[in-house]
Amino acid sequence: MSFLDHIRRANNWNPGDFLSLAAAGHIVGHIRCDRIDDLRAFPDTVTVSPDHLSLAPGLDDFAARSAAMDEMLGALRDEGAFPGWRGEFYPVMPEWGDAPLMQVERATCPWLGVRSWGVHINGYVRKSDGIHMWIARRARDKQTYPGMLDNMVAGGQPIGIGLMENIVKECAEEAAIPEDVARTARAVGTIAYCHQFEDGVKPDQQFCYDLELPADFVPRNTDGEVESFELWPIARVAETVRETFEFKFNCSLVIIDFLIRHGLLDADSEPDYMALCLGLRKGP
Amino acid sequence: MSFLDHIRRANNWNPGDFLSLAAAGHIVGHIRCDRIDDLRAFPDTVTVSPDHLSLAPGLDDFAARSAAMDEMLGALRDEGAFPGWRGEFYPVMPEWGDAPLMQVERATCPWLGVRSWGVHINGYVRKSDGIHMWIARRARDKQTYPGMLDNMVAGGQPIGIGLMENIVKECAEEAAIPEDVARTARAVGTIAYCHQFEDGVKPDQQFCYDLELPADFVPRNTDGEVESFELWPIARVAETVRETFEFKFNCSLVIIDFLIRHGLLDADSEPDYMALCLGLRKGP
Repeated sequence: MSFLDHIRRANNWNPGDFLSLAAAGHIVGHIRCDRIDDLRAFPDTVTVSPDHLSLAPGLDDFAARSAAMDEMLGALRDEGAFPGWRGEFYPVMPEWGDAPLMQVERATCPWLGVRSWGVHINGYVRKSDGIHMWIARRARDKQTYPGMLDNMVAGGQPIGIGLMENIVKECAEEAAIPEDVARTARAVGTIAYCHQFEDGVKPDQQFCYDLELPADFVPRNTDGEVESFELWPIARVAETVRETFEFKFNCSLVIIDFLIRHGLLDADSEPDYMALCLGLRKGP
Repeated sequence: MSFLDHIRRANNWNPGDFLSLAAAGHIVGHIRCDRIDDLRAFPDTVTVSPDHLSLAPGLDDFAARSAAMDEMLGALRDEGAFPGWRGEFYPVMPEWGDAPLMQVERATCPWLGVRSWGVHINGYVRKSDGIHMWIARRARDKQTYPGMLDNMVAGGQPIGIGLMENIVKECAEEAAIPEDVARTARAVGTIAYCHQFEDGVKPDQQFCYDLELPADFVPRNTDGEVESFELWPIARVAETVRETFEFKFNCSLVIIDFLIRHGLLDADSEPDYMALCLGLRKGP
């Protein structure tokens, strides 16, 4: 195995399996071809053409689009299309910073193939023998990726709140990190990928943050989503990423980016160095 | 102006102005359409087709390709095609780490549109009031980008030496940095772009290094390529990049990457944050 296998795993999308979904002149989603027939019952919401899908004519503002999608997705949920409802809305935007064209229930994003955003926080401690990183193990009963290794704190970006606001909320819920500590997290870049899996496709982008913690701080989960936290020497983190798929797929990318930014990969001796740097922000 | 203007300036390539050059089944260069006629005098080196160029049949190893190109490029030099000869060979590789297909004189790279690689070093000092960065001003008589602002040390990557070896050499020549200090430079990532200008096109990739220096170290140029060095507070560096084009185009990207990695751009308040992170490694 190599670090590059994680870039490949995260970018395993086969566009030929999907039809694109257009809204307001933008491609906003990608729906699996074998699910298109499910959409034919909703001609007032989605127009099905042989080579693409588009929101029905007349759905020309945020409220109208969101209401129509909500009704359609609710009906599909009742037929069992989605693994569960999260009760959280995500913005649908062509690019980060654009005005949202509509909002959709979080659990439907992979099925629709709409891009979502989130924050991933590298929680670490500097010791005399180098950097140690807090690693979370996801709860065994978590809906997605149960039992896998994860960044200390990570969360999707719901509509209507800022990134730092989301970090403060997630830090409190997932690791009992006080607000004043959470606010010292520093934005250090982003990753992007396009990952196909059973639920659909995630053409997502994540904001990465570094949070240096005091040596005596111990994270404690409060929302039941994390089974345990462990503080690992960075060499063990690097080796576990390089040699296994134990980390949730996108967390591997966040950690590879951390290793690169902190000078822990050597450009001369890591043959895939350039390919890794370019591959971390590939996207669809 | 905005930081994003620097991504745009560095990626101003119009592919329609060029024909691609193939060697051993790879696209290795892009030559301006209005220069194709210059190549018709060398049918034993380059085959001109209506929609692409390729190395002539029979040039099937490194030595044969390099010798044929050297002869052709020398003749074109004598006709004034290149601004000057550097006496340094660059490898021609589809991707970093591939076996070189041939080598060409450095000065011909933009004319041929072959990718080149290099190292850029952010030299900085941590003071009580934050990071200060050493900024170089290029000599007024330098062949390329005379008088422009630059990273403390930067250099193209010649064939046959390692990245750290190149750093040690460039640090000595450009800033009189002792080898033991130069070797503390840490690889922290890469940038990529595709920049069109009078000479041709540069679809280049640069390895970025951070070099933290002692507060009392003062760089001193030894090869005549740098007019002066100044130590600037990082806020002045950021403002100069954001508001002007005083830096050589690719140095702006190296500095924006530095600002992002060091948490000096805020993801909530910088509207182009995601576009910058993705745009720094765009390439052709």
